[in-house]
Amino acid sequence: MLEELKKKVYEANMELPRRRLVTYTWGNVSAIDRESGLFVIKPSGVDYETMSPEDMVVMDLEGNRVEGRYKPSSDTPTHLELYKRYADIGGVVHTHSPEATAWAQAGRSIPLYGTTHADYFFGEIPCARSLTPEEIGGEYEKNTGLVIIETFDGRKIDPMYTPGVLCTNHGVFTWGKDAAEAVHNAVVLEEVARMATKTELINPQVKPAPDYLRDKHFFRKHGENAYYGQN
Amino acid sequence: MLEELKKKVYEANMELPRRRLVTYTWGNVSAIDRESGLFVIKPSGVDYETMSPEDMVVMDLEGNRVEGRYKPSSDTPTHLELYKRYADIGGVVHTHSPEATAWAQAGRSIPLYGTTHADYFFGEIPCARSLTPEEIGGEYEKNTGLVIIETFDGRKIDPMYTPGVLCTNHGVFTWGKDAAEAVHNAVVLEEVARMATKTELINPQVKPAPDYLRDKHFFRKHGENAYYGQN
Amino acid sequence: MLEELKKKVYEANMELPRRRLVTYTWGNVSAIDRESGLFVIKPSGVDYETMSPEDMVVMDLEGNRVEGRYKPSSDTPTHLELYKRYADIGGVVHTHSPEATAWAQAGRSIPLYGTTHADYFFGEIPCARSLTPEEIGGEYEKNTGLVIIETFDGRKIDPMYTPGVLCTNHGVFTWGKDAAEAVHNAVVLEEVARMATKTELINPQVKPAPDYLRDKHFFRKHGENAYYGQN
Amino acid sequence: MLEELKKKVYEANMELPRRRLVTYTWGNVSAIDRESGLFVIKPSGVDYETMSPEDMVVMDLEGNRVEGRYKPSSDTPTHLELYKRYADIGGVVHTHSPEATAWAQAGRSIPLYGTTHADYFFGEIPCARSLTPEEIGGEYEKNTGLVIIETFDGRKIDPMYTPGVLCTNHGVFTWGKDAAEAVHNAVVLEEVARMATKTELINPQVKPAPDYLRDKHFFRKHGENAYYGQN
Repeated sequence: MLEELKKKVYEANMELPRRRLVTYTWGNVSAIDRESGLFVIKPSGVDYETMSPEDMVVMDLEGNRVEGRYKPSSDTPTHLELYKRYADIGGVVHTHSPEATAWAQAGRSIPLYGTTHADYFFGEIPCARSLTPEEIGGEYEKNTGLVIIETFDGRKIDPMYTPGVLCTNHGVFTWGKDAAEAVHNAVVLEEVARMATKTELINPQVKPAPDYLRDKHFFRKHGENAYYGQN
Repeated sequence: MLEELKKKVYEANMELPRRRLVTYTWGNVSAIDRESGLFVIKPSGVDYETMSPEDMVVMDLEGNRVEGRYKPSSDTPTHLELYKRYADIGGVVHTHSPEATAWAQAGRSIPLYGTTHADYFFGEIPCARSLTPEEIGGEYEKNTGLVIIETFDGRKIDPMYTPGVLCTNHGVFTWGKDAAEAVHNAVVLEEVARMATKTELINPQVKPAPDYLRDKHFFRKHGENAYYGQN
Repeated sequence: MLEELKKKVYEANMELPRRRLVTYTWGNVSAIDRESGLFVIKPSGVDYETMSPEDMVVMDLEGNRVEGRYKPSSDTPTHLELYKRYADIGGVVHTHSPEATAWAQAGRSIPLYGTTHADYFFGEIPCARSLTPEEIGGEYEKNTGLVIIETFDGRKIDPMYTPGVLCTNHGVFTWGKDAAEAVHNAVVLEEVARMATKTELINPQVKPAPDYLRDKHFFRKHGENAYYGQN
Repeated sequence: MLEELKKKVYEANMELPRRRLVTYTWGNVSAIDRESGLFVIKPSGVDYETMSPEDMVVMDLEGNRVEGRYKPSSDTPTHLELYKRYADIGGVVHTHSPEATAWAQAGRSIPLYGTTHADYFFGEIPCARSLTPEEIGGEYEKNTGLVIIETFDGRKIDPMYTPGVLCTNHGVFTWGKDAAEAVHNAVVLEEVARMATKTELINPQVKPAPDYLRDKHFFRKHGENAYYGQN
C-alpha cells in the first residue's frame, strides 16, 4: 500500500546524506497520505546504503504499524504529533545536521539576519524549551512533539510560515507540504544556521534584519503576490 | 538570437554550484551584448540540473523581455542598473555564497588583509547601506542596483578596480568584462571573505595591509605594467 | 594466520581516509582475537593507497611481532595496553582528526552538549593529562596507554560507556567491540567535537545537557532496555 | 632537458588543487637539479586543467630562462633565493592555502600546539616581517626570499627542521628535499594551521606544547634515531 508515497519518502531520506545533513543513520523523513490518514516513515537504525523503498514503514495516527517488516524510526511519535496538530503539513524531517544542531545545543533561536533566511522562514527559527525530567522519563518522543507545538502556540508562530524548529540539546525538525519540501527546508535551515554563526563572529553586535525586509522577501516567494519562480 | 552569449551565460551559471557558491537556485549570472544593448540572464527559480542554454532569457535595457519562454531572474532590475551605469561591465553575478553573505549580514565591508584580496580588489569590498522601507516597498530590485551605484559613487570607488559589493542583510554582486570573469570574481570574493573571517579570529587587533602592498599586487596583475601571467 | 581479522582491520583502516579522519598516514586501527590473544594492526607509515590486507601485522600481547613483513604502527604499545587492561575492547583506533584534536591541543574534555554525544558517549569525553618528561623520555607509547587507563580509573569512567579519549597536545583514541565499531566511534567523536566547538561560539555561557537527558538517550541505544534500531 | 624533473614538478603542481591548497592558479611548485644548478618551475598564470609537463620552465640560478615557451611563475625570484641560500632544499612550494594564509594575514607565527605539528615542524612556524615600501617597490619577489632568509637567520631556525614560513599579508612557502616533500609539507602546514585556529577558539588561554614533547615527536620521525615508518 502507498507504494508511490514510500518511493517519495525513500527518495527524501536518501537526499539527507547526499546533502550532508546526516552522519550514519542520524535522521529520518516521513510523509502523510491525508486521505487514508496513514503516514510512511524510515525504519529505525537501518543504513542508508542498503535501504530500499519497501523498507519504509506505514503507520496510522494512533501510532500503530500498519505495514512493514521493520520497526519505525524511534522519533515516530514526534512526527505523529506534528501531523495530528497541523493539517497542512505533508512531510516531516528530523536531523542532527551540525550547524543547526550547534544552535540547538547552545539553546538559542536563530535570529533572522538576512534574506536567505527570510526567503523561507518568516522570523527567527525558534528553539523549543528543554523537556522536564518527567517529560523525558515518560513518553519522550511524543513529548518532544508536544513541546514543539507548545513553542509555536505560545509564541504565536505559524508553522507554515516558519517550517522548522530547534530542540534544545538535541537537533532539528523541519516540515513542508510534502517530504521533498521538508527536506528542502532542512537544507535551508542548515545553511541559514551556518551563516548566522559566522555573522555573529564577524560582528558580535549585529542586529536582526528589519521586519520590512523580512516581509518583502518572504512574500516575494510565498502567498498570492509571490513573483519569484515561474508559475 | 544571441545564441553564443546564451551558451556563455548558461556555462557561467553552471559554474556557480560547481564552485559551491549557490544552494538550490540562489544565484544568477547575466552578460550583455553591448552592440545590440541586450543582455541574457538566467530564468527565475529554474533548477540548475534541468536548465539548458535555450532557457536563458534575453532582455533589453528598458527591462522588456525580448526572447525566452521563462520569466527572468527576479534580480534582473539590479543587473540592468549596473549595465546602464557602468559601460565597462560585461557580466554580472548574484549569489548568497555563505562566507561573503555572512559579511553582508554582519553589515561590514571586507578589509583588505592580504595579497589574495589585492590581486583582484583594489581596497576593501564595500558593504552597501540598508535600503529604506520606501526603497524596499517600491521597486526593490532596481533600488538595490541604485544603492550599489550610490555606494561606489559616494566612496569614490572605481567598479572596475573593485568588481564586487556586499548588500546588507542580503548577499553579493560581482561583475567583470564578461560572465566568466564575473563568476571568477565571485569565487575570489568568497575565498577572500573566508580568509578575512579567520584572520580576525586569529588576531582580533589585525590591521589592513598597507597601501603600497595593495598597489604592488593589484598592478602586478592589472593595467599596462602588469607582469603576472603570459599576456 | 587470522586472515579474516586482517581483512577487517584493513577495511577499518581504509575507512579512516574515506571519512576524512586522517591526512596521509596519521592514523591506525587494530583488532584483537581474544581466543589466541593476538592482535592485528596497521604497519607503520605505509600509504593507504598501496596498502593491502596482507600488509597488516600480527602482534602478541607481550609486544612481539608474530607475523608480517612490516614494522607495526609506532602507536602499537598504546593499543596493547588498552587490550590488556580492558577485556571487552575488540578494536582500537588512533587518529589526529582535526576537530577532536583541536580539543586535545586545547587540553579540554568535550562537555556533553546534546543527544548526538549522549547517543554514544555517557558523559564528557575526557582529556587525559600531559605525560611527564620522564614518561615521554621512557616508553612513550606504552605510557600514553597507561595515562589513558589512569584517566578512566581516576575519574571512575567506564570505558565501554565512554569509548574514546583525548590525549593532551596529541590526538584521539577510540575503541569498540571490534575494529568497525571503533572506527564508528571515531567518526562520532569527530562530529561531536565539531558541534561542541560551534556550540560554545554561539553561546559562550552554555551549560552541559542535564543528566536525565544523557541517561535517556544513552540507554535508548545501549543496554537491555534499548529500543533504537531493529535488534 | 630535465624531462624527469619536469614530470615531477608537474605532478607536484597538480597535487595542489587535488589537496585543495589552491584556487585557480594561486600556487606554484619548483624543484632543482643540483648537479646542473638548474631548476624547473610552473609557468605564470597557466590553468592547472590544461597544463602539461612540457609547459614547465627551466631556469638557472641567475634568473635566466634556459628552456620553455612560457614565462615562469612571477614568484620565481623567491624560489631562487631559497635555492641559493639553502643547499639542502630540493623543492619549493608557494600557496595561498586559506587556513595558513589567515595566520599570515593575521601576522602571527603558528605556535606548536601538538604532535601533528611537531612531527614535521620543530617549533613554531615563523611569520616573516612585512616588507618595507622600498623592498616592495624594488625587486619585490627577490626581497620576499631575502626576508624569509632573514627570519630564519635572525631567529636561528634551521630551515630543514622547520620547512615552511608565513609571509605577512600574503601566503606561505614550504620546502623539502624534493618537490613531493615540499608539497607534503604544504599539506601539513595547512592542516596544522586549521587545528591551531580551532585550538585557540576552544581555549583562548592555551599554551604551546612542552619542548620535550616536541623533541620526542620530531625525532621519532627525523634523524638517526627515528623509528617511525619502515626505513
